[in-house]
Amino acid sequence: MNKPSAPSPRTQVKRVAEYASYDSALLHQIVDAAWVCHIAFGDTNGSHCIPTACWRDGDWLYIHGSNGSRMLKRLQEQDCCVTITHVDGLVLARSAFNHSMNYRSAMIYGRFEAVDEAHKRVAMEAFMEHLVPGRQAQVRAGNDKEYAATTVLRIALHEAACKTRTGPPKDEGEDLDIPVWAGVLPLAQSRGAPIVDDGCPLPAPDYVRAWQG
Amino acid sequence: MNKPSAPSPRTQVKRVAEYASYDSALLHQIVDAAWVCHIAFGDTNGSHCIPTACWRDGDWLYIHGSNGSRMLKRLQEQDCCVTITHVDGLVLARSAFNHSMNYRSAMIYGRFEAVDEAHKRVAMEAFMEHLVPGRQAQVRAGNDKEYAATTVLRIALHEAACKTRTGPPKDEGEDLDIPVWAGVLPLAQSRGAPIVDDGCPLPAPDYVRAWQG
Repeated sequence: MNKPSAPSPRTQVKRVAEYASYDSALLHQIVDAAWVCHIAFGDTNGSHCIPTACWRDGDWLYIHGSNGSRMLKRLQEQDCCVTITHVDGLVLARSAFNHSMNYRSAMIYGRFEAVDEAHKRVAMEAFMEHLVPGRQAQVRAGNDKEYAATTVLRIALHEAACKTRTGPPKDEGEDLDIPVWAGVLPLAQSRGAPIVDDGCPLPAPDYVRAWQG
Repeated sequence: MNKPSAPSPRTQVKRVAEYASYDSALLHQIVDAAWVCHIAFGDTNGSHCIPTACWRDGDWLYIHGSNGSRMLKRLQEQDCCVTITHVDGLVLARSAFNHSMNYRSAMIYGRFEAVDEAHKRVAMEAFMEHLVPGRQAQVRAGNDKEYAATTVLRIALHEAACKTRTGPPKDEGEDLDIPVWAGVLPLAQSRGAPIVDDGCPLPAPDYVRAWQG
């Protein structure tokens, strides 16, 4: 099977191109594992890099915020770059310059568009389902005033590139006999014990008890 | 004691300004806890958001890469924005729209500058010390050819803003009696069991055995 190629010149990975992938299944995995993305955009003050919560529905990445957000206004007027990075480990080689990191990253280019009122509700409920599956039906849903003050934007996942590194260090042949431990120090995201709010007398629901796995 | 104020107009946090801080001790903590940052910069293809390894020495943040890197060239010609974000937990409120995340983030504005040859070696050894304290003396150090192919840049930490959220959900008074569990689901970075390289017969040194704490 042929691998997918870069969908545009600006998504063509040039540095360490053997780590690049344009496969949408990998892209979806990287997006779905993220709580936040970083968005680069420009204005008269220069470039900005702002972290914000994100979630995926089909071939779209969604974000939301206050109607007054400078970023949300700008993102509807110009292209931007959305990046997600997961660091999976430190790679300890036998020479200093062959040290590396294992990681999974995705960069998405394009322009965000606002979703309409009906779609906004569907999207925000999908966001809750991404954060805490099963919770939406238990909380007070957003009211008209809350929705009216909120903008939901989406960007197509079409113009994107992933870059990943996995596995052991890659040393030069002449360095392999250097007497130093070599390998990988793994990093991962972990879930801590749920902290109940002071004023909450209720037992933890299944999705809270399952949080730590 | 007066809190430090924003060092420039573009670091003045406007949205949820009560979460902002311009304290350098907090900034240093957020930078030191990071393995990577995201850098926003622009070129004729628009805005880019690129993740890269970073480390701190004093009041400077350092990055490095190949001399051929498009980003490293551009970053010496124009201002950029460097952002670091740690997600610390999901905040489950009683109403959908009061859900939030706990996080620590830092944004740094300014222009990178290249460090000279002598400083490059000091900086790269500080990078190794950040990654794996104690390892530099055991590996093959970078040689002249490796250093000659590598650019090290630094940016002052002076023009920066931090934004953090901690603690429990903040519900409206009229939502407090909604019968749904409320609290925080913590997230943290964890360290996995070291994976020795296939070809390595050596016992793990102290810093590898201590990795998991």
